[in-house]
Amino acid sequence: MTRILLLGAGRSVSSLLHYLLRHAATEGWQLTIADMQPAHLVPVLAAHAAYARAVPFDMQDEAKLDELVREADVVISMLPALLHAPVARACVRHARHLVTASYVSEEIRSLDEEAQKAGITILMECGLDPGLDHMSAMRLLTSIRNRGGQITSFKSYCGGLLAPAAEADNPWKYKFTWNPRNVVLAGQSTAKYLEDGRLRFIPYQQLFARTEALAVPGVGEFEGYANRDSLSYREPYGLLDIPTMLRGTLRRPGYCAAWHALVRLGLTDDAVHLGNPATLTWAELVEAYLPVSAEAHNLPERVAAYLGLTPEGPEMQRLAWLELFSARPVGLPNATPAQLLERLLTEKWALQPTDHDMIVMQHLIGFTLNGEPHLATSSLVVLGEDTVQTAMAKTVGLPVAMAVRRLAQGKLTQRGVVIPTLPELYDPILDELDQEYGIRFVEEVGVGPSPERRG
Amino acid sequence: MTRILLLGAGRSVSSLLHYLLRHAATEGWQLTIADMQPAHLVPVLAAHAAYARAVPFDMQDEAKLDELVREADVVISMLPALLHAPVARACVRHARHLVTASYVSEEIRSLDEEAQKAGITILMECGLDPGLDHMSAMRLLTSIRNRGGQITSFKSYCGGLLAPAAEADNPWKYKFTWNPRNVVLAGQSTAKYLEDGRLRFIPYQQLFARTEALAVPGVGEFEGYANRDSLSYREPYGLLDIPTMLRGTLRRPGYCAAWHALVRLGLTDDAVHLGNPATLTWAELVEAYLPVSAEAHNLPERVAAYLGLTPEGPEMQRLAWLELFSARPVGLPNATPAQLLERLLTEKWALQPTDHDMIVMQHLIGFTLNGEPHLATSSLVVLGEDTVQTAMAKTVGLPVAMAVRRLAQGKLTQRGVVIPTLPELYDPILDELDQEYGIRFVEEVGVGPSPERRG
Repeated sequence: MTRILLLGAGRSVSSLLHYLLRHAATEGWQLTIADMQPAHLVPVLAAHAAYARAVPFDMQDEAKLDELVREADVVISMLPALLHAPVARACVRHARHLVTASYVSEEIRSLDEEAQKAGITILMECGLDPGLDHMSAMRLLTSIRNRGGQITSFKSYCGGLLAPAAEADNPWKYKFTWNPRNVVLAGQSTAKYLEDGRLRFIPYQQLFARTEALAVPGVGEFEGYANRDSLSYREPYGLLDIPTMLRGTLRRPGYCAAWHALVRLGLTDDAVHLGNPATLTWAELVEAYLPVSAEAHNLPERVAAYLGLTPEGPEMQRLAWLELFSARPVGLPNATPAQLLERLLTEKWALQPTDHDMIVMQHLIGFTLNGEPHLATSSLVVLGEDTVQTAMAKTVGLPVAMAVRRLAQGKLTQRGVVIPTLPELYDPILDELDQEYGIRFVEEVGVGPSPERRG
Repeated sequence: MTRILLLGAGRSVSSLLHYLLRHAATEGWQLTIADMQPAHLVPVLAAHAAYARAVPFDMQDEAKLDELVREADVVISMLPALLHAPVARACVRHARHLVTASYVSEEIRSLDEEAQKAGITILMECGLDPGLDHMSAMRLLTSIRNRGGQITSFKSYCGGLLAPAAEADNPWKYKFTWNPRNVVLAGQSTAKYLEDGRLRFIPYQQLFARTEALAVPGVGEFEGYANRDSLSYREPYGLLDIPTMLRGTLRRPGYCAAWHALVRLGLTDDAVHLGNPATLTWAELVEAYLPVSAEAHNLPERVAAYLGLTPEGPEMQRLAWLELFSARPVGLPNATPAQLLERLLTEKWALQPTDHDMIVMQHLIGFTLNGEPHLATSSLVVLGEDTVQTAMAKTVGLPVAMAVRRLAQGKLTQRGVVIPTLPELYDPILDELDQEYGIRFVEEVGVGPSPERRG
C-alpha cells in the first residue's frame, strides 16, 4: 500500500484527482486530500470511500502539515508556489517523496543535498509549463541527437488560451483560464535569451512589442513573447553551447500590441497605491496618466495620439472594448494600477459556462544533419472538455499524477531535487498521455533554414 | 546632564558631529558615538574626551543596542533607513527620545501610540529632504495664511548637485554626493501628484520625459522630475483641499532626457540578474538590448535610431561620455543592469578632491490675496566648504543636531511620532541656520499666475 497525500484541491486539480481515484484501487493507494474547504470533495469522493478521504487543512497549521506528511509516502503539493518550501522541508524531515508542478525556487534547490541524504525525490516542474515542455523537448532533442543531428537553435512557446469557438466575442481572443494576477504582472522584468550566440535582453517596456509570429497546424496563427529567463535550461537540456535559445508565451495575434499599450500607459504597475477612491472612473484614471493637453480632442483620441496609435486601429479597439474610456468605476479604493486592471479583466475576460479552453505548445528546433540545416517543429493542441476537465487542468494535473504513479511503483530512482528531463520519467508519461488521453505532439521536420529572427 | 547617543558616524555626519561637540560643554551633554569602525573618530574626539567617547557597534548586536539606548536620554540614528525600526523599538522600550533624517516608514508610524504612552518623541524627517523642506515650506505657508492668502498651488523641488565650478568637466553636470544606488533606482514606481484638482500619474517609463523647468536666482536653470508621492503631505501641511501639489527632484537641464534614454534601454532594471561574465563589454551589453538589425550602422547610430534620438544630440553625447559604446568591461559577473550602471557611474560621477557640492531647494507657492493670484518663490542654495563639510552634510546634519538640542532643552513637548512641521521646532532651527551658518531661503513674491503646467 502506498499512502498519497494531495495538498490543495482547488478546481484546477480535477484531472489530477480523477486520475488518482481511477487508479487507486488497482495500484493499492490510500489517498488523503487536504484542503482549506474540503466540503466540495465529499460528493467527489463518495464512491471511493474505501481508499480516499478528505481532511480540512490550513497551511498556517504547521503541526498538522507535519502530521499529514509523516503519514504519507508520496506528497503532491498543488498549493500556491510560495507555499512549497515548508512542505518540502517537512518531506525532507520525514523522508517522504514530493511532486509539484511549480518552478524550482532557490529555497527548494537548497534542499537537494538533504533530500538525497534522506533518500527522497523532490520532483518539481512536472505540470504543463514547466513540465510537459521539458518532457517533450527532451524527447525531441534526444531523437534528433540519436539520428546524428547537431542542435543549433531551440525555441519553445506555450500558452493557456481559448478554444477557437470561445474567441469570437472578444477582440483580445483571451480569457482567464489560470491565475489572473500572473497574467497582469507577466514579464515585469528584463527577459533574457540567446540569439546567434549572443545574449539578448528585452526590458519590460519593450517585451510586448518584440514578438515572433508562429503557426500551429489546425489552429492558426499566434504570436509569442519571450519569458523572463530562457538561459537557465541550457544545462538541464544539455544545450550549454547552443547559439539560439528562447522560451516564450503564446497569445493570439494582436494581443501583445494592445497589452503593450496598457504597459506604456502605466496600468500594469503593481508598486504604487494610487490613493484613489473606488468611485474613480476608468476614464478619469486613464486621463490621469496623460500629459496635460490644452487640445479639445476626446479621451480615446488623446490616448491614441499619446501612444502613437491609429485612433480606429486594433489596439485602440481592444482598449475601448475593455471600457477604459468609460464612466465605469474602478471599484477598489487606494489600489495599484495592476490591481484595478486585474479587477476589470477578471470580469471582461471571464470564462463563460459554455467556453472551452485550449493549451497550445510549440517547439521549434533547428539542427544540422549531414551538413544541411533542418527545422523540427513539434506542436501540441489540447482542448478542454468542459469547465471542470479543462485543457489546463488536464495538462497540468495528468503529468503530475503519472509521475506520482511511477514514483509509487519505484520506477523513478533518482533522488534529490529533480525535474522531468529523465527518459525513465518522460517516455512513459508522454506515451500514456498519447495513448490514454489523446494528448500528443505532432512533429514535422523540414530541410531549410532556422526560424526567422525576432524583430 | 543629557546623555546623547549617535548611532552611525560615517562621513556624512561630519556637520552633525561638529555641532554636537561644539555645544556639548555649554549644554551639559555626554556624547556616545557608536559606529561599526570607530577608529576614525579617535582624532576627531581627542580634544573632547571630557564629554565624548566612541564605541564600536554592530547593528546585528541587539543586546548592545539595547544597552546603548538604555544609557542615553536622546538617541540620534544616522544608520541606513532600513535599520531605524529596531532602534525605534528600543527607544520605546526604554522611553528614550529618537531623532532621524529619514522618512516615516509604516513600521515607525505604527509605534506612535506606544511612543506617546512612553512619553517620548520620535522625530523623523528632520534632515534636508525630508526635513528642511518641511520646515521652510511650513514657515512660508503660515506667513501667507497669516497675511490672508489662500493657497492654490504648492510645488517644491530639491536636489543634491554640484557647485557650478565642479560641473565643467561633465556633460551630465552631476556627480554622486549621496547614495549612488538611490540615484540609479530613483523613481522606479508610478509618481502621483495633483494638478488643477485632478490626480496625475506618471509611470516610471515617462518620469524623466515629463519635467518642469525652473530658475534659481544666482545659480541658473534646472529641471525637476516628480517624486514618487506628492500627495501624502497634504495633511501635515494643512493643504487637504489644494488643487495643485507636487514635490520633485532637481537636476541640471539635459540630465533627465539622457537618463530617460538609459531607462528606455533597460539599463536601470534591478530585478533580473543578467548571467553575464564580468568581461562583457559595455558595447556588447548595449547591443544585447537592441532589436536584431541587418543594417550596417555602428552601435551609437543604431542606439540613436532605436531611441529616436539625434545621433550627435545632447542625449547621445551624454551616453557616449559614459563609455556605453566602448570595449570597457562591465566588471561584475551575473549582475543586474542597475548594478552595472551603478558601478560605471560611481567611477564616472566620482567627486574629485577639489569638487564642492551644492544643495538647491525651491518652493513655488501659488495663492490668491485680495482676489489676485500671486506666486511666492522661496529658494535655498548651499555650497559645500570642502569634501568633509559638504553642503549635503550641513543641510542634513545641522537640522538634526539643532532638533536634538531643542529636545534636550525640553523645548519640544509633542510626543509620539512627529515630523518638523511644528513652529516651536522650525522657527528656531531656520533662524539658527540663517544666523549661525548663513543657510537661508530667499523669498520673492510676485503678482501673477501660477507656475506653468508640466509637459
